Order: sequence, then C-alpha cells, then structure tokens
Amino acid sequence: MTEAFQPLLLRALAGETLPRPPIWFMRQAGRCLPEYRELRSRAKDFISFCHDPEMAAEATLQPMRRFAFDAAIVFADILLIPRALGQEVWFEAGEGPRLGPLPEIERLAGEVEASTGRLSAIGETLSRVRAELEPERALIGFAGGPWTVATYMIEGRGSDRTGARTFAYEHAEKVDRLLDVLVDSTARYLVMQAKAGAQALKIFESWAEGLAEDMFERLVIGPHKAIVEKVRAAGVTTPFIGFPRGAGALVENYAAKVPVEAVALDTQAPFALGRKLQAQGKTVQGALDNLLLRAGGPALDARVEAYLEAWGQGPYIFNLGHGILPDTPIEHIAHVVERVTRS
Amino acid sequence: MTEAFQPLLLRALAGETLPRPPIWFMRQAGRCLPEYRELRSRAKDFISFCHDPEMAAEATLQPMRRFAFDAAIVFADILLIPRALGQEVWFEAGEGPRLGPLPEIERLAGEVEASTGRLSAIGETLSRVRAELEPERALIGFAGGPWTVATYMIEGRGSDRTGARTFAYEHAEKVDRLLDVLVDSTARYLVMQAKAGAQALKIFESWAEGLAEDMFERLVIGPHKAIVEKVRAAGVTTPFIGFPRGAGALVENYAAKVPVEAVALDTQAPFALGRKLQAQGKTVQGALDNLLLRAGGPALDARVEAYLEAWGQGPYIFNLGHGILPDTPIEHIAHVVERVTRS
Repeated sequence: MTEAFQPLLLRALAGETLPRPPIWFMRQAGRCLPEYRELRSRAKDFISFCHDPEMAAEATLQPMRRFAFDAAIVFADILLIPRALGQEVWFEAGEGPRLGPLPEIERLAGEVEASTGRLSAIGETLSRVRAELEPERALIGFAGGPWTVATYMIEGRGSDRTGARTFAYEHAEKVDRLLDVLVDSTARYLVMQAKAGAQALKIFESWAEGLAEDMFERLVIGPHKAIVEKVRAAGVTTPFIGFPRGAGALVENYAAKVPVEAVALDTQAPFALGRKLQAQGKTVQGALDNLLLRAGGPALDARVEAYLEAWGQGPYIFNLGHGILPDTPIEHIAHVVERVTRS
Repeated sequence: MTEAFQPLLLRALAGETLPRPPIWFMRQAGRCLPEYRELRSRAKDFISFCHDPEMAAEATLQPMRRFAFDAAIVFADILLIPRALGQEVWFEAGEGPRLGPLPEIERLAGEVEASTGRLSAIGETLSRVRAELEPERALIGFAGGPWTVATYMIEGRGSDRTGARTFAYEHAEKVDRLLDVLVDSTARYLVMQAKAGAQALKIFESWAEGLAEDMFERLVIGPHKAIVEKVRAAGVTTPFIGFPRGAGALVENYAAKVPVEAVALDTQAPFALGRKLQAQGKTVQGALDNLLLRAGGPALDARVEAYLEAWGQGPYIFNLGHGILPDTPIEHIAHVVERVTRS
C-alpha cells in the first residue's frame, strides 16, 4: 500500500502528527440523517436491523456519502454481545434498551465460544463496507466496554448505574466473573471484526463515570487491558481507541495502564490533559461538545479552532466528546467537517 | 480562644495536618435519620421547614447528638436563593424541586439587596445552632454554586442539564448576567451566614460535570472566584470549601484559580490528585463513595483506611464524595465516624 492510500486515521493512530487531523463523529451513522430514518423504518426492529448486513452496511455508508469523514464506523450496538451470550435484549421505541433477567454467569460463560458465531452478521457488514469504501477512508469496528455492558445486564436498562455500582460492591466475585466473560467474548468479537475488515477497534466505555479509583481500576482498566492483550495474543495488530467516557482525572491512570494506541477524550477533558497524553505517546481523539455542534454559530467555530490549535500539534483525531444528537442540523456537521478537512 | 477549643475542622482549614482528620458527612442532617423524618412531618412543606429556625436548628443538631461529627452544617437548601430573588420554588413530594418560569434577569437583579433579608431565618438558624453546639465542633454555612442554581432556574427542575448547557451556548449574555446576579446574592447571603455564626462556608457546585474547559472557566471558576472575593471584600475571613462535583480533571484548574481554602473532591478523584492539591497548599475534603457507605462490610473498612493513608498526611477533612443516601444504615455511619475519630 503506497503512502497516498494509507488512510489518515491509521496514520494518526500510528502516532503521526499530520498537516490536518482526520475527522469522524461518534454516532455519525443514523440518528440525525433522514435517509437513515427511511432505511430504519423498513426493518422489523433495531436488533434485526443491526443483524442485517445489507441494511447495516447501508447505514454505515450513508454519512460517508454526505460528509467528507475520514473514517466509517460499523453500524451495530454494544448490547449485541449480551444477546449473543443468551440474555434477552430488546429496544422499546423512544425509551431505549430493555434486557431480561441476568442469567447465571456460568451459563453465560458456556456461551462465549458460540457467541462470536452469532455475531457473524456484523463481520459480514464490515466486509461489505470495506469493499465499497474508498481506500483512503478507514473502517472502524467497536464493542462496548465490559463494565458499561455489565451495567445494562445487571440493571436491565439504561440507568444512573447506582444499582450496578452497588452490585459491584455487594457481589464482587460475581461481577468480576461477569467481566471476565465479557472480556473473553468481546476480545473474540473484535478479532472477528478485524479479520472481517475493521482497520481500527474502539472500546466504548460509555459509563466510566462516577467510579472511585480502585473501582475504576477493577471495572475498567483491568478489563480493557485484558481485551487488548487477548486480541494481540490472537495475532491481530489492529490499533485500538479506548474511550473511558466520564473518567475525569482517572483518564491518566487509564492511559498509563491500558495499551491502546489512542485515547478518546470526552467534552470535559482539559487541553492540558490531551497534550500530556500526546507527549506520553498516545494519539488523542475528541472532544467537541455535541451540544455546541447542535447549537452552531460563532461559538462552535471558535471551539473548533481551539481544538485544532490545542491538539493539532500532536497525533490527533478530530471528533466529538460524545455522540451526535438526533436533532443536530446536518449543515452544522458539514460545516465542521469542511473546516477540519481544509485545515 | 485556647488551642484546645479551636475546632479540628478549622485547624484543618487553616492548613494543619492533624493527628486525625476532622469528619463530617454531606447530607448528615436529615434523610436517613428517623428523628428527622418525624420532625419533618410536622412542617407544612420543605420550604417552610428550611425557613423555620427552630425546626432547621433541630435538624442541624440531630446528627450531632447521634454521631461524633466534628462539624455541623446548617439545614437549608440551595434553592432558597432563587426563591428569595422572586422565582417560584416548591418541592413535589418524592420528585424533587420545581420552579416557576425564569423571571426577567433585570427583575431578579433588582431583588438582590432585598433577597438577603428574605433569608434571615437561615441566619437565625445558624445563631441558634452555634449557641447550642459544643465549642470544639464547628458550624458550616453553605450556598449552591451559581451554575448549579442557574440550571434549576433555567430548566425548572432537576435535569441532566443539557437544556441549561445549550441555553448557556445560545443565550450567553443572558446566562452570564444571571450568574452575576447569583454571585452577588450568594456573596451577600454567605456574609450574612458568617456574621450569624458560620465558621466555614461551602459552595456546592453539584452539577459541575460535563462542561468543556472554557465553559467550566466561565460558568464555575469565574463565579466562585467572584463570590470569594466579594465575601473577602466585605471583611469576612471565614474559610471556604469549594465543591466542584464532577469536575474531573478540571478540578486542577479550579484549585489553581479559585482562592478557596479547601477543595471538596468527589468519589472519582484519584488519590494522586488530592495529594497534588495538598502539596499546592489546599486542604482536601472527601471522598468516600456514598454507595459504599450504604453497602458496608470489609470493602468499606478497607476504603476508609485507604483514604486515611492517602490523604491523612496533608491537611484533610474526612467526608463522602456526595451526600448520604436516605437508606444508608445508621450503624454504617456510626462505624466510620468511630474509626476516623479514634485514628
């Protein structure tokens, strides 16, 4: 592959500081696009949609046609893993995910090997997208962080996580065993994604917030480290992006201990923190406020410049600090992509 | 006042490292105490309760009789200020606060001087408590952080703050003016509290989380700095405890720029961060997980020891990272207080 065809995203993940950072946005596929809503209306339900390679590939590619993003991210959901392990998962329209009772952990453990096969449709989606996507644009695979997935499995729905955090104090062994099972199935799932065409792998720990330092070490750092090590042990060298959202000052512990190539920072991350991580050899991704992207105007423009200035001097991937909000005006997205890609 | 009668809390706030840290708990008054619930049932509503010096003083003192806390905190609420400024505030049983429409900011500004007089009952509560409390136990006054109070004033209730954060982007001048008004009324309110007997003043910025660095500077750091400076300009030297809850890595910016004597850290704060603040001359307060206090057991004991070890070597006030949960077993509180006071 000649230099010209090495996607910018992969160069940034390899630690290169580029003339301009690559850009993609979390939740760029779906949500705010009318063509997505039209596509989605043709599927029976959200889970079926994720497991339909034709539809999921189309949803992955839709934002790539509209915007000059440097990377696509496979359309899928972090709750496909508990479903593949045998816990019931469904989506209530307008309300979000619902899960059946948490099965016995050893029953889940017995399903780990089979779970990867049950997720083969996501591999098929990746292969289709990779075949269609221009070579200079990268394709990202992903999974949820084990702790975040476990909070849904324990609480049965999206929550403030206090139930899951209490459960982690009161049933420590059970939670640790559940995280082991999730680490194992997630690592296998990500190996499969890499083999199917994913050129970067992101771990979305959406609910890393509010954990005390020792709990963060146990519930987030340990499992992420184990996933990366298992994927590497399988001979897969695909770069990782770790996203411990809401980890605050604990991001430094995370970056020091988890061998990911890039750390995705959330909106709250100070510029100095990002620069420190870059100086330590990490690529930084983030962290524009999704509320500001939606609001638009001169404040948005000023903030985009500020990120380019603060983090553009080291290996950097321009992104949001959290996913695009459904009611974000499409022209705001186009405007920011246009600015970053001509920088 | 001889050394023997200088309350431990004030010695810690003066920067002394003590043989054992003083201890008090956020939300120690009310909530989990049966005698509080009995007292509360006699009041017409929550607002009337806060404005009744006899009842509020009793609620403040109840936990001091039960536990060997080193400090009492006046029973009041952060939403008494918007009410004193003329916005309607009430509490829906089991649901939390509700506020009427946000008045014109200039109308609120015109009420600042009068607002302090409307809060005189809280001064009366402080005087009563100070008269009854043993001299070696300190009395803390408090107010909400202007941004946190503003989020309630803008959204009309507790929320995920995305509405208020969006409002702060889209109506920047209006929000800045509202914060000015809140800074002014809060500073006057805290001066009044100090004169009435408060020996330390705490600013509860309960919703500092999720703000980008520039917004945190504008909405939290600036207003807190202005409050402390205004209180000092009024000749009041009472020490301040700043609590930017959820500020993550931005706590360092806060500590560097806001001239508070102590920074209260939330549960997520790493030990290294607390030690860094102590080395910079701040007293640190915090940060035991309120979920762990409720859960109890060996994990609680181990964590208490860890805080004493990590932060006890510098000026430290033992506390939670957030308020006591209503269903916390009273014996867990007694157990931790017993451990810390004999250390």
